[in-house]
Amino acid sequence: MDLFSEAIYTRRRAQLKTLVGNGQILLMGNDESSSNFEHNHYPFRQDSSFLYFFGIDRPGLVGLIDIDANKETIFGEEATIDDVVWTGPQALLADLAARVGVLDTAPLHRLSATLGATVHFLPPYRPENILKLGAWLTKTPEAITAGWSKPLVESVVALRSVKDDGEIEELEKASKVTASIHLTAMKAAVRGTREFEVLAEMQHAAAMANSSFSFPPIVTTNGQTLHNYYYGHELREGLFLCDAGGESAKHYAGDMTRTYPVATTFTTKEREIYDIVASALQASVQAAKADILFKEVHLQAALVIAEGLKDLGLMKGESVEAVSAGAHALFFPHGLGHMLGLDVHDMEDLGEDLVGYDDEVSRSSQFGLKSLRLGRRLQEGFAFTIEPGIYFIPELIEKWQSEKRFADYLNYPKILGYLGFGGIRLENDYYIKHGKAELLGPAVPLTNTEVEDFRKSLD
Amino acid sequence: MDLFSEAIYTRRRAQLKTLVGNGQILLMGNDESSSNFEHNHYPFRQDSSFLYFFGIDRPGLVGLIDIDANKETIFGEEATIDDVVWTGPQALLADLAARVGVLDTAPLHRLSATLGATVHFLPPYRPENILKLGAWLTKTPEAITAGWSKPLVESVVALRSVKDDGEIEELEKASKVTASIHLTAMKAAVRGTREFEVLAEMQHAAAMANSSFSFPPIVTTNGQTLHNYYYGHELREGLFLCDAGGESAKHYAGDMTRTYPVATTFTTKEREIYDIVASALQASVQAAKADILFKEVHLQAALVIAEGLKDLGLMKGESVEAVSAGAHALFFPHGLGHMLGLDVHDMEDLGEDLVGYDDEVSRSSQFGLKSLRLGRRLQEGFAFTIEPGIYFIPELIEKWQSEKRFADYLNYPKILGYLGFGGIRLENDYYIKHGKAELLGPAVPLTNTEVEDFRKSLD
Repeated sequence: MDLFSEAIYTRRRAQLKTLVGNGQILLMGNDESSSNFEHNHYPFRQDSSFLYFFGIDRPGLVGLIDIDANKETIFGEEATIDDVVWTGPQALLADLAARVGVLDTAPLHRLSATLGATVHFLPPYRPENILKLGAWLTKTPEAITAGWSKPLVESVVALRSVKDDGEIEELEKASKVTASIHLTAMKAAVRGTREFEVLAEMQHAAAMANSSFSFPPIVTTNGQTLHNYYYGHELREGLFLCDAGGESAKHYAGDMTRTYPVATTFTTKEREIYDIVASALQASVQAAKADILFKEVHLQAALVIAEGLKDLGLMKGESVEAVSAGAHALFFPHGLGHMLGLDVHDMEDLGEDLVGYDDEVSRSSQFGLKSLRLGRRLQEGFAFTIEPGIYFIPELIEKWQSEKRFADYLNYPKILGYLGFGGIRLENDYYIKHGKAELLGPAVPLTNTEVEDFRKSLD
Repeated sequence: MDLFSEAIYTRRRAQLKTLVGNGQILLMGNDESSSNFEHNHYPFRQDSSFLYFFGIDRPGLVGLIDIDANKETIFGEEATIDDVVWTGPQALLADLAARVGVLDTAPLHRLSATLGATVHFLPPYRPENILKLGAWLTKTPEAITAGWSKPLVESVVALRSVKDDGEIEELEKASKVTASIHLTAMKAAVRGTREFEVLAEMQHAAAMANSSFSFPPIVTTNGQTLHNYYYGHELREGLFLCDAGGESAKHYAGDMTRTYPVATTFTTKEREIYDIVASALQASVQAAKADILFKEVHLQAALVIAEGLKDLGLMKGESVEAVSAGAHALFFPHGLGHMLGLDVHDMEDLGEDLVGYDDEVSRSSQFGLKSLRLGRRLQEGFAFTIEPGIYFIPELIEKWQSEKRFADYLNYPKILGYLGFGGIRLENDYYIKHGKAELLGPAVPLTNTEVEDFRKSLD
């Protein structure tokens, strides 16, 4: 059975039409992106909503769903003889459209005259799409940026949040590539190697699977920096953190993090912190069920972290109160996870609050909790990450200590003994199946014993 | 001696000021580019002219050279504590500016009020820069797109065309990485391998040198397609073409092409065509000297190709006339080369005609010759590629034959016997030193014997 058949795309568009109700839905495909001159391109990445509803992985297209006229059209250009000489024979746009159940195609210059009074479009995250929409709708860039359709966003979120069988299969494939990228890193990350050399091996593992990264990997001896994209350090001692994912052929994302010692085994200090993070992950997986608020899962992970750190003397006082106040965020300043799908932060372009929150639960403004991308109730078919972490961020510790922030809960003299420790994050991907969190992809060494055993086996 | 010292950048800006004469010169740095949502970024690539005059490899900056007020300022934002938590400690903008001799920095919101009546800017190739310039100068996107400064473009071209010692050193480094990428490909491209697997090995070679590609590589069993970016075919027989380059640490580009048989040795038919292309390359290197029109070098290569093909019976009639008419372009439909520097097609964003042509020589409209990017006289310090090729493009042959185009010069019945042959291109990088074309980087197997010997040595 073809899980990405014409019928699937036709049904998705029919559902979208029903949800939006009236007017015209204009879905912008992406163009090529220029690096240092117009024709030097980054690897093409199609827009994810365009992929979801129209499935065609080619630049320069626009999909128009006219609800009132009950007509679907893909706008774009057919290849010329010059195109064929330079880039080879191309499939006809009409044929590509037919494969996803769209019967009409037309050149782009016809689009503008086709547009009526009510045109729904998504928030444009690519500047070229702001310019194009502005030209077609004769509006300023500011008006386009502000003019996206909330009914369309809510409808797309409603559909894309619940993954169908074909999407779960793709997420499994993405997680499989992701696992192979991580096992490769765990082999390459040994003393004397430099970060970019580990990255080179990971990239090779992805490329040999005809895949690519779903986001720029974090490959670092400085795990305390949440998004470190500098790869110049040599691996000498301490901890090494790797956060990376691959894409499936249909562009579904994997996202995984592992942290391990450059040496074969953890020091006691490292293992103590590591075990807290691993416990927070396990507790979160148990807690993440259908109908549970993901915000509650996040807070439960925070509580595991606070209690663990209290046992080590780094925190003090009542842990529930400390978490409620946000004191734990000195160590765990980010969210527990996010939706996963065609985007590694799924649908982030549609606005994090409309994706991860709803009428029932809104985003907190508290440091730490404000960075939680997913707060609402989990549902059958939701795919998401779980990624707790503990970090010792010198600049943040210094700032909070100087402000005496949360002095009732934070044992600063003891904390200062962890400067230079770095950071630990552990992350897997899950989806809700039969009400419970099911792991996506194969298991990759996770507990301190599994990690040490794997690393020892390389000697 | 530091070939990229503060003094070098200061001198480049002083020269630019003198050439432009008056007003304000606004050089846009690049931003991060989004792939599938705003915060999922492609690898950052700074604008090349910004790198040339300001040297700072960080997103979100603007350089302003106020000629009338004799003041240079870099506009941009310093990191906040949130930035430090997420992306680690950052160098101060003021410190980065001082290293390239710029004494003033200011936040971006101050830029607009600083701009006077005469603001020179370069043609924006990134849509976000069109939007930003429009907001700062209160102009429409169309006015910005049309509003670039010809005096500024001509001045930047005058300076960037002639490479200084530091730039030649960087080009040598880029060519060295490029050679290693190609040797890796020559080892990997064996029967049974797939194109993306060869690409994976090439990417690995670049990444292990802490480098990246200067453009998306062409790695193909279908060399007749000039820019084939599909990598799915298995290597079975016939020819394999690889066109790829690496970047130096300061983002100077290499660009090299090799074509070789999937089998260890060439067939007679392959070797005959190969030798013509190799001869065209050698003849071009001899011809490329200071004060010679590169258009003449191109035409000389075309003549070598036409005569070689005549010897094989694929062309007929007087070769000089055939080349003058453009008949050879059925086989050699692209230009012989282009400028090379911070961009692989150096300064292509400034407009190919203002870079590669001048008052003396303008671009032809003839098929083939119209694709020649560099036509003007070579000068000491110019860096450029030489890349002749012979291709059998089925769609083009079919079209021309049906139109009986150049039937006096083209032996169509014989040509049809080469359908399925593919294409051969050979390319090296050079610069003019002491009046002559000097090879950039180490030699990589080129003659049919060198290629066969190298490939045999892998068995």
